[in-house]
Amino acid sequence: MNPQEHLEQRGTFRMTVFEEEYFQGKSCEFRFECQNILERDFRKIRSIKVENGPWVGYEYPEFQGQQFILEKGDYPCYQAWSGNSSYRTEHMLSFRPIKCANHSDSKITLYECEDFMGRKFEMCEDYPSLQAMGWCSKEVPSIKVNTGAWVGYQFPGYRGYQYIFERDRHGQGEYRCYNEYGTQAHTNQIQSMRRIQQ
Amino acid sequence: MNPQEHLEQRGTFRMTVFEEEYFQGKSCEFRFECQNILERDFRKIRSIKVENGPWVGYEYPEFQGQQFILEKGDYPCYQAWSGNSSYRTEHMLSFRPIKCANHSDSKITLYECEDFMGRKFEMCEDYPSLQAMGWCSKEVPSIKVNTGAWVGYQFPGYRGYQYIFERDRHGQGEYRCYNEYGTQAHTNQIQSMRRIQQ
Repeated sequence: MNPQEHLEQRGTFRMTVFEEEYFQGKSCEFRFECQNILERDFRKIRSIKVENGPWVGYEYPEFQGQQFILEKGDYPCYQAWSGNSSYRTEHMLSFRPIKCANHSDSKITLYECEDFMGRKFEMCEDYPSLQAMGWCSKEVPSIKVNTGAWVGYQFPGYRGYQYIFERDRHGQGEYRCYNEYGTQAHTNQIQSMRRIQQ
Repeated sequence: MNPQEHLEQRGTFRMTVFEEEYFQGKSCEFRFECQNILERDFRKIRSIKVENGPWVGYEYPEFQGQQFILEKGDYPCYQAWSGNSSYRTEHMLSFRPIKCANHSDSKITLYECEDFMGRKFEMCEDYPSLQAMGWCSKEVPSIKVNTGAWVGYQFPGYRGYQYIFERDRHGQGEYRCYNEYGTQAHTNQIQSMRRIQQ
């Protein structure tokens, strides 16, 4: 594949959803966002193939509820995209592409308090443990995305609830308090964080 | 903290395990490996604080069964370390520190076939989707760790079964076929992979 072709392919978002596990049953290919899979006459999504990503899936219609980052690859069952096994939901009812900046040019700033107050920390890399990097808390009260798209996780090692943080989608990338992280966010607990790759 | 103190702290592995969720009940601090927590008069581990890592936990005594990477941070319940919600195990009965190389000096080689045959791919970075990087399969039949310690995952985005790959522990870092990946490995499916950080 020459660089131009690679570039074009990168620009084309594509994923296929299936009504049954292991890519069985009724299927539908998407290249753009879907606000409500139920309106497409699907009862449920039980497996997914992401041909070109990244995408983000949501528990409820219109991009509400738990978030699921979906990068290129095979997801044969809902456990493959739901990183959280304590709150078991089998719903993924809406999804949309994630527009990323250049992966090597991503930057995010974490703040010790809400409204971008207190000490801050700038990150340009993936951190499976924020505490190992020097962040002294298991919580992140407010966040500014300077460039790119990021995903934060409740537990170390990229586990538990997932929260997508984007420069281009949410204001100017400003998340003033944890209930702006997502409609399912019950705490500001974030213990690992990484860039979203194209 | 000055650089020397930081270096010394990095060298000291330390984690505390608790018999109840949310860091309650009987506890015990470890600085070295533990082959069988049952012999320490623990019935079960229900929460963990990793003060200095990384560690790897195992489902069964003597480092057998499912593997769980444990980096610095709080794990208030077993779901926080078990990335796999399809096969629910609440057991973590043995654990040991992971000796890492310098994080910026990690290298691993993936092979298209068993016994290091076929096309190969060298990696020095974290990849939440091997397929997005150009790996054409959802499987990795054999692996050589050139330097450092790595963790591979069944699904994209660092989800599902976890497999630790180490240069210093397993022969010369040579994993000839998938049943050398771990005693619970039932397939060679690996769709994401990252370096283990100190």
